[in-house]
Amino acid sequence: MDSVQIGLLGCGTVGAGVVDLLAKRSGRILELTGLRPQIKRILVRDLEKPRALSIDRALLTNCVDDILNDPEIAVIIETIGGTSPAHAFVMRALEAGKHVITANKDMIAQHGDEILAAAARTQTDVLFEAAVGGAIPLIRPLKECLTANVITDLQGILNGTTNYILSKMTATGAEFGDVLQEAQDLGYAESDPSSDVDGLDAARKLAILASIAFSTRVRLGDIDVRGIRSITAADVRYASEMGAVIKLLATGSNEAGHVHLRVGPSLVPKDHPLARVDDAFNALFVHGDAAGDLMFFGRGAGSLPTASAIVGDVIEVLRNMRLGVSGRLTPAPNSSKPVNEREPAPAAHFIRLEVGDKPGVFAQMAALFAQKSISMESVVQRRLNPLAAEIAIVTHDVSAGVLARAMKELQSLPDVVAVHNVLPVLKGDSTS
Amino acid sequence: MDSVQIGLLGCGTVGAGVVDLLAKRSGRILELTGLRPQIKRILVRDLEKPRALSIDRALLTNCVDDILNDPEIAVIIETIGGTSPAHAFVMRALEAGKHVITANKDMIAQHGDEILAAAARTQTDVLFEAAVGGAIPLIRPLKECLTANVITDLQGILNGTTNYILSKMTATGAEFGDVLQEAQDLGYAESDPSSDVDGLDAARKLAILASIAFSTRVRLGDIDVRGIRSITAADVRYASEMGAVIKLLATGSNEAGHVHLRVGPSLVPKDHPLARVDDAFNALFVHGDAAGDLMFFGRGAGSLPTASAIVGDVIEVLRNMRLGVSGRLTPAPNSSKPVNEREPAPAAHFIRLEVGDKPGVFAQMAALFAQKSISMESVVQRRLNPLAAEIAIVTHDVSAGVLARAMKELQSLPDVVAVHNVLPVLKGDSTS
Repeated sequence: MDSVQIGLLGCGTVGAGVVDLLAKRSGRILELTGLRPQIKRILVRDLEKPRALSIDRALLTNCVDDILNDPEIAVIIETIGGTSPAHAFVMRALEAGKHVITANKDMIAQHGDEILAAAARTQTDVLFEAAVGGAIPLIRPLKECLTANVITDLQGILNGTTNYILSKMTATGAEFGDVLQEAQDLGYAESDPSSDVDGLDAARKLAILASIAFSTRVRLGDIDVRGIRSITAADVRYASEMGAVIKLLATGSNEAGHVHLRVGPSLVPKDHPLARVDDAFNALFVHGDAAGDLMFFGRGAGSLPTASAIVGDVIEVLRNMRLGVSGRLTPAPNSSKPVNEREPAPAAHFIRLEVGDKPGVFAQMAALFAQKSISMESVVQRRLNPLAAEIAIVTHDVSAGVLARAMKELQSLPDVVAVHNVLPVLKGDSTS
Repeated sequence: MDSVQIGLLGCGTVGAGVVDLLAKRSGRILELTGLRPQIKRILVRDLEKPRALSIDRALLTNCVDDILNDPEIAVIIETIGGTSPAHAFVMRALEAGKHVITANKDMIAQHGDEILAAAARTQTDVLFEAAVGGAIPLIRPLKECLTANVITDLQGILNGTTNYILSKMTATGAEFGDVLQEAQDLGYAESDPSSDVDGLDAARKLAILASIAFSTRVRLGDIDVRGIRSITAADVRYASEMGAVIKLLATGSNEAGHVHLRVGPSLVPKDHPLARVDDAFNALFVHGDAAGDLMFFGRGAGSLPTASAIVGDVIEVLRNMRLGVSGRLTPAPNSSKPVNEREPAPAAHFIRLEVGDKPGVFAQMAALFAQKSISMESVVQRRLNPLAAEIAIVTHDVSAGVLARAMKELQSLPDVVAVHNVLPVLKGDSTS
């Protein structure tokens, strides 16, 4: 028997894309693996809901046992999303000896350890290329192609919604709230956008990438996460005047076994390749000690791009079945490196603050910076109204501790109205 | 016995990098594969030549039989380069059941079919990630991660020397000959630079990538290859005024089973991600029917980046040995699709020509273009001297046949002194 029975959990945008792409490539997959993938059942919540014509309604079920208890089904593709009930379904599937392919970043970020341990125990494959970066091959290059490297740095644009919002703010000068509203109207942002705009979605993806790249367990709670709600049109404009764009960056570094993980808005110099990653595109910059700088770029979401990654994983699962090596490629349990326990390396920072428009305010600020040995790379001052002015500064490299103390003192100066934003600046383009 | 004996052929820059990186990562490779790689012999031409301290001189031999006839040696790493004698050595190694890892683009481009057939016959692995794009994972993503896609387009900057020269010409306004001389003085270009500047090196890499991406045999001779010797500072300046940079692009397209392959200087719009790939960096843009646009970017050459790819391949060979699946992942023999037999898709073109500076010349040219239905997107005319003017044009999409006939007629107009360069323009950035 040459065909492999597959159970599909979930039939939304991604699930439907998987059905279409698997059908379209089934001859080729047979050629590549000697096996023909066949979707036997599809789990949906609502049997009556209208579906695309390509979905065979006879395959639909609203009872997960029809899939998990079917011994003929050898592979599960999970496209439900979220941790519950997906996590429980996946654990049951693995215990039943089924291979699992998933696009579920929430589940892998939160329960990846447990899931990979179950896969090792039951000699099954668990693959999740689609969980990070959509169509872009990221997991496999990190897991297989770059294994000769110690990876020291990751810098990624991993969330399409925030990248769309920031790209629009940059292109049009509009404020965050207006662009968010427009993105919601167009369906690019959820009605509750918090997991995107508050950085949690990017943090989950960073947790997955960093655990592979740095060979360590990463708990979501260890990541320093900031969103983009505080970014204003003024920040975007000052950043541009200073030769940079604002991006929501997910960054990881691994220095002598100490890992730093952060998600937050950052200034990216316009000559850095990441500065040109706009709209719904994602990208990951990787530095390996032998390979040097690498970048991977492509569509981070969408029905077919996500299906592209999932069906790629199906092909690997089938090939492993054919070769009799299923479950043998799961990485060994990782070490645990301390995360965010040491101060990160000094970095340049962007600071925007509002001050009373009086003589001497700038001098006070400059004296404070001088006293802390923080030197400034560029400064722009602009009058807001007869009583107030706005100052935007980019510093040279400064340690986080020194900067935090300086910001506290700055805030307490009588003529400083508010320090609005303090954002790190990504180091300039090493490629030129 | 946990160690695997390796024979290294060649000990130049790349070979020495492999020795160092293998030593540095040997513990980790043991962890990942259960096997410890050990270099047993190193083939060199000159036993007396001074070597880096990390090279154990006791391993050196100038007799290839010491390696190829040693039954303990299970893996060959070939870093000699060129087709002869590398090709013969590799064939002997495969016939002896040894796995082969090579960075040799000349050999794979020319003899890849024969080598892969021998590997399939002898159940051995042949891996060559380092042959294209240095440290950038390209072969494996195309072969494994994007298998769910029909790949329709490839656009690559695959040769570091020409990219360095063109980047310098763009940055400084200098002429080709001066920058080439400087690159030779700095050791970035060979004393005989023809395989780089005439496009053959890029063509070899394109042949390798296209054969994998389009699942077809590619003969080097089928590729339309032009180099960059004809590019002048004037071309670079006009391109810049028209919003583009000149790059040596290797392009492949696969439309309904008809393949087009070309290497040649092209205009890349400044907002395209490839426009920012400067100096010694390489990049490959890929379009898959499901994944959409993807880009892979990184260091295309150098001792450690190349060693990064080679040692990554060593890890795969060892893992396959451990799992007992060596030689099972070699792709099936490919189909043969016609190459460059149909006219390529219409494209915008840049044309620079010199004309007599008289009234009516421009009108004659415009009339000729109108008669051929070639419309112009932008035109710049500049006086060269009292008798001559230079015109740079970017057309809208035009078919190759129409363009060729128009250029012939243009050249025969009495007041046209010379048509200096006709270069295709890459389609604008689909990412914004």
